[in-house]
Amino acid sequence: MAKKITSREEDYSQWYNDIVQEADLAENSGVRGCMVIKPYGYAIWEKMQAELDRMFKETGHVNAYFPLFIPKSYLSKEADHIEGFAKECAVVTHYRLKNAEDGSGVVVDPNAKLEEELIVRPTSETIIWDTYRKWIQSYRDLPLLINQWANVVRWEMRTRLFLRTSEFLWQEGHTAHATKKEALEETKQMINIYAKFAKSFMAMPVVQGLKSANERFAGAEETYCIEALMQDGKALQAGTSHFLAQNFAKAFDVKFATAEGKQEYVWATSWGVSTRLMGALIMTHSDDHGLVLPPKLAPFQVVIIPIYKGDEQLEKLSEVAMKLQKSLEKKGITVKFDKRDTHKPGWKFAEYELKGVPLRLALGARDLENGTIEVARRDTLEKETYQIIDIDVKVENLLEKIQNNLYKKALTFREDRTFKADSREEFIRLIEQGGFVYAHWDGTSETEEKIKQETKATIRCIPFDAQEEHGTCLFSGKSSNKRVLFAKAY
Amino acid sequence: MAKKITSREEDYSQWYNDIVQEADLAENSGVRGCMVIKPYGYAIWEKMQAELDRMFKETGHVNAYFPLFIPKSYLSKEADHIEGFAKECAVVTHYRLKNAEDGSGVVVDPNAKLEEELIVRPTSETIIWDTYRKWIQSYRDLPLLINQWANVVRWEMRTRLFLRTSEFLWQEGHTAHATKKEALEETKQMINIYAKFAKSFMAMPVVQGLKSANERFAGAEETYCIEALMQDGKALQAGTSHFLAQNFAKAFDVKFATAEGKQEYVWATSWGVSTRLMGALIMTHSDDHGLVLPPKLAPFQVVIIPIYKGDEQLEKLSEVAMKLQKSLEKKGITVKFDKRDTHKPGWKFAEYELKGVPLRLALGARDLENGTIEVARRDTLEKETYQIIDIDVKVENLLEKIQNNLYKKALTFREDRTFKADSREEFIRLIEQGGFVYAHWDGTSETEEKIKQETKATIRCIPFDAQEEHGTCLFSGKSSNKRVLFAKAY
Repeated sequence: MAKKITSREEDYSQWYNDIVQEADLAENSGVRGCMVIKPYGYAIWEKMQAELDRMFKETGHVNAYFPLFIPKSYLSKEADHIEGFAKECAVVTHYRLKNAEDGSGVVVDPNAKLEEELIVRPTSETIIWDTYRKWIQSYRDLPLLINQWANVVRWEMRTRLFLRTSEFLWQEGHTAHATKKEALEETKQMINIYAKFAKSFMAMPVVQGLKSANERFAGAEETYCIEALMQDGKALQAGTSHFLAQNFAKAFDVKFATAEGKQEYVWATSWGVSTRLMGALIMTHSDDHGLVLPPKLAPFQVVIIPIYKGDEQLEKLSEVAMKLQKSLEKKGITVKFDKRDTHKPGWKFAEYELKGVPLRLALGARDLENGTIEVARRDTLEKETYQIIDIDVKVENLLEKIQNNLYKKALTFREDRTFKADSREEFIRLIEQGGFVYAHWDGTSETEEKIKQETKATIRCIPFDAQEEHGTCLFSGKSSNKRVLFAKAY
Repeated sequence: MAKKITSREEDYSQWYNDIVQEADLAENSGVRGCMVIKPYGYAIWEKMQAELDRMFKETGHVNAYFPLFIPKSYLSKEADHIEGFAKECAVVTHYRLKNAEDGSGVVVDPNAKLEEELIVRPTSETIIWDTYRKWIQSYRDLPLLINQWANVVRWEMRTRLFLRTSEFLWQEGHTAHATKKEALEETKQMINIYAKFAKSFMAMPVVQGLKSANERFAGAEETYCIEALMQDGKALQAGTSHFLAQNFAKAFDVKFATAEGKQEYVWATSWGVSTRLMGALIMTHSDDHGLVLPPKLAPFQVVIIPIYKGDEQLEKLSEVAMKLQKSLEKKGITVKFDKRDTHKPGWKFAEYELKGVPLRLALGARDLENGTIEVARRDTLEKETYQIIDIDVKVENLLEKIQNNLYKKALTFREDRTFKADSREEFIRLIEQGGFVYAHWDGTSETEEKIKQETKATIRCIPFDAQEEHGTCLFSGKSSNKRVLFAKAY
């Protein structure tokens, strides 16, 4: 009855789906494109939220909540914004149902038609800037550093659990500043925070950079992003931070009085990460045995499994296990002691391996006699028997090791699949093969579009740390002064 | 320029609105009936969430997330449920906008009509039980103890910030059990948790009891509630816990195999509290000077305000203040040190009084000389000068005192306005005057309806602790064996 994960080699896409399903992370609902995030998956998301929320607050941000609905006319106020979002939104047109006259159930009450349709927010710039107009009069009211945790809806035609769903959960920061400089610094600060979170908590290396004009957020003047490489060689955009200039301030007429008494438009940023990070996390570390979780985001970091015959043995083992659990918890380590008698140890081993629990401690009768315990690492699948003395310290060290090892492993993977292409043929071959490809590009949208059509590769970003280097665009032959990052992407 | 709060005596309703506005808690948005929860208000809600979430998890519940949208047909599956919710829901009928042909903006794309309309969840029983069908096969899968933090929409015609809004934030627990007994125990446990939260954190006394049939949740067999008394003598339902029997299991065909191998329908509960609690909190403690917050839910419990002339004084005061802040924070006390030079101390005093900060510490040059500090309590408005030595301990004690005092004050208020009515005339007079009125009732919906029409009073609950007491219904003259709780309500 062991649950079966398709191997990556056999079918990468099915492997991903299998893990999401078998590790109990999420599933499709009866509503097209909308997922149910199951308790185990949600617990990981809660860990992510807690860390991000702390990082936001440490940098002076506060949370607030804005309406789910956006009047249609608001969405139209910023020209690029409506172009980007009109195609994929859920529209509320009525506010009441009534019993069908033929008794067949309920129907929409035609008398309850809204005067103006409401859009379920695909992102909240418009409703928030409509609000900020009331909050900002003077430079003393600035900066506003506000974040919102919310659900948003973008009507996607092709959906995949976590990676692209019609409804998803996210946070969206919306800040207002007196100067361009300050807004740009905020935009940069937030992409740095995302990169730090990806590295320190998700154990996921990312490349930070600028989006090309084609890939920019609808309404932004600049979009910064973090890009990660998945195990199938495709890139995944894991977070974005937008410099919105004065676009939304102008669209919603948000001005402030400067210290000198002049009226000026407010400068804006917005930035967000979403439940898509769950997809990134899964695809960065997991293997053919199931999910692999970095200890810092695991709902429980350690599982203790007793191996016993009869109630008496179980009782003795439980005593030791619960003492151990307490000493681990004292160190801030989260522990599950699974002594259910409805499932055999072998079943439990498989289950927690599938669920990516970083460390499995198994305790049997012989261990009690010898003062030992078996410790299995999920990342390396290595098993070792330790003296139980000071096991809490050993576990603490091991968890740290696992966290670091996962990052190093992911970094090595990325480095092994990061290339420079210096000819068109090489570029096509490398993109086909999968991975990050650094290449020269002439800086035009036309060439970018052409490359996309020919190779399916997009410019993931113009890396912040790109070196000045003279070269020629592989597709147009025009000159270029730095390489940009190409890949096929999710 | 002091912000002005209308007094309760002058206009209670305006007093409430003034506090919500002037204490920066929330405001109406451009979307009918939908509010913006401002950062200070949201920070209080976050505190509530954190405590409730902890209490839920301590009793074995886990969080998950279910879709925002509910297919229309799901809502119809439970007959009472659709009757209760069809009248007030937001209906999504289309999934795309397009540019208007006359260039006047965007319009709903008629080609993007959904085959089946989607309802923005007014509550999630239906979508969740449709999901539970897939999760529950055997008694081993039970109980399911799941909670969701989410936004919901009920299209209200008359809205008031926090108390009744079209969109609101809440948590909804949805549990599944093998037996009726266990489900009933869960229903009871959760109303107990709500009562405990109200008492221990909100410092708000509540009456626990059963709803009459008229006031039951649409689809429930029993609804338990907590009811609080507001300062205008009206009751506010602050939380409900529903025993749903097998109604949703039958509607969504959710059966499980018992240990004996029989197929049985699953037993259910659901329970929730919402941002309405914010309204309850405000109206329980606040006074004509503004918001009053119990320390356990205050975004910051202490504000330190320096009173200074010139930078040099400020620097000296800051040194002491920041040391004090640190020693308070070490005790887990949250502190804001407001040394902004854009506002005068008097303005700050007024501002934090308005915002209900439990303790205000003011530190001037003379205090430095004397080793003193002025401490002002928000609940009693008393000021006292303390030796600064061991001030952290004194502050800690004062905060505890304030928390207890607020509860006692609210309890005394409620007791003073709780009455027994033994005649119809007395009942009408007491209800008119405002407060909780205990009276005999014959147990029928007809009489309840009649009382409501004649007096505007509703049965708030049949208290759990009602004493057996023979009497006669004040309105029908029929016999009754206990008093129930009447009041006009929000």
